[in-house]
Amino acid sequence: MIQKYPSILLENAVNEFAKLPGIGRKTALRLVLHSLKRTPAEVENFGNAIITLRNEINYCKLCHNICDEEICSICNDLSRDTSLVCVVENIKEVMAIENTGQFHGLYHVLGGIISPMDGIGPRDLQIDSLVERVKTGVVKEIILALSTTMEGDTTNFYIYRKLSGNNVKISIIARGISIGDEIEYADEITLGRSILNRTNFSDSLKQE
Amino acid sequence: MIQKYPSILLENAVNEFAKLPGIGRKTALRLVLHSLKRTPAEVENFGNAIITLRNEINYCKLCHNICDEEICSICNDLSRDTSLVCVVENIKEVMAIENTGQFHGLYHVLGGIISPMDGIGPRDLQIDSLVERVKTGVVKEIILALSTTMEGDTTNFYIYRKLSGNNVKISIIARGISIGDEIEYADEITLGRSILNRTNFSDSLKQE
Repeated sequence: MIQKYPSILLENAVNEFAKLPGIGRKTALRLVLHSLKRTPAEVENFGNAIITLRNEINYCKLCHNICDEEICSICNDLSRDTSLVCVVENIKEVMAIENTGQFHGLYHVLGGIISPMDGIGPRDLQIDSLVERVKTGVVKEIILALSTTMEGDTTNFYIYRKLSGNNVKISIIARGISIGDEIEYADEITLGRSILNRTNFSDSLKQE
Repeated sequence: MIQKYPSILLENAVNEFAKLPGIGRKTALRLVLHSLKRTPAEVENFGNAIITLRNEINYCKLCHNICDEEICSICNDLSRDTSLVCVVENIKEVMAIENTGQFHGLYHVLGGIISPMDGIGPRDLQIDSLVERVKTGVVKEIILALSTTMEGDTTNFYIYRKLSGNNVKISIIARGISIGDEIEYADEITLGRSILNRTNFSDSLKQE
């Protein structure tokens, strides 16, 4: 069904909102109509915030995280362990790991994972710059923290091969039963892995 | 939990998106990060579409629908029945009724309904202009098409009283069981009303 809009400006705004992921035309209309109830200044702040971000955003020269300066605040933080680098897919994972408060090393943001289905190959990702970072000799351990999917596994293996021969320890985040999960509902692959990769009970007590 | 953003520009954009109704901070971040994958020109189009709409939007001098000119395309349409005016809450209802293709009169957009809880009184709505429209004598019938809620009922009654004494027929949209609904699951009030307001069966056959 073709929706008829009473105004071209309105239709234009709805079309633009509907281009956002997960926003359908009905939601787009709701968001646009809500904007009409706000002051022109508020709407201008909204529109300009995203335009300014897009035009002025920087990526950290070291870890490729989003930042406002040349080097991001994490890489600039002298209290952090520069010998430990956590490899993540995107900035969302950086924020998620930072929120845990459990990691005090640096990051390396790949900008995605190898996914032939989406046409993303190793050259589209920040893998060469990771190899160069390792070659400086400062990095002693790399932690691979990619999604536990086929694409994540492929990327992990690609990085592992690229880094072999360098004097660096390559770790991967623990995979197992999520905390709070019931064993009977866990999938077989996760459960199987969690048994193979069992850890010392007295070590686990220390983490509580 | 306070989320730490690696960039002030990013945080600012997320804050602005999170002000939209129904958009939480997680969704806001997802939408903002998606924008970083688009070209600057695309993001500029997005931001400017909503700013332009807000700054240049007009409301039809007659029916108060959103439009680009002084008078909206519906009021300007000479083929429509000017003696019939459908009173609606907002532009969304205009679009919904237009989509049915069953109405060929004009509209009157109130801009809301009387709702003391939200501090909306009759003076905040386009009720006086409706009374003036009726007083011109062109309008022969008013159809009240507001929400079937307490607020809608209050507004209906307020308009009914304001228009009494004028030579105009005041109708209200039919309330009853939705088409496709099963009787056993209908609520008692709706079911009761649908029995009181039963219509002639042979008339209903003509609408198929």
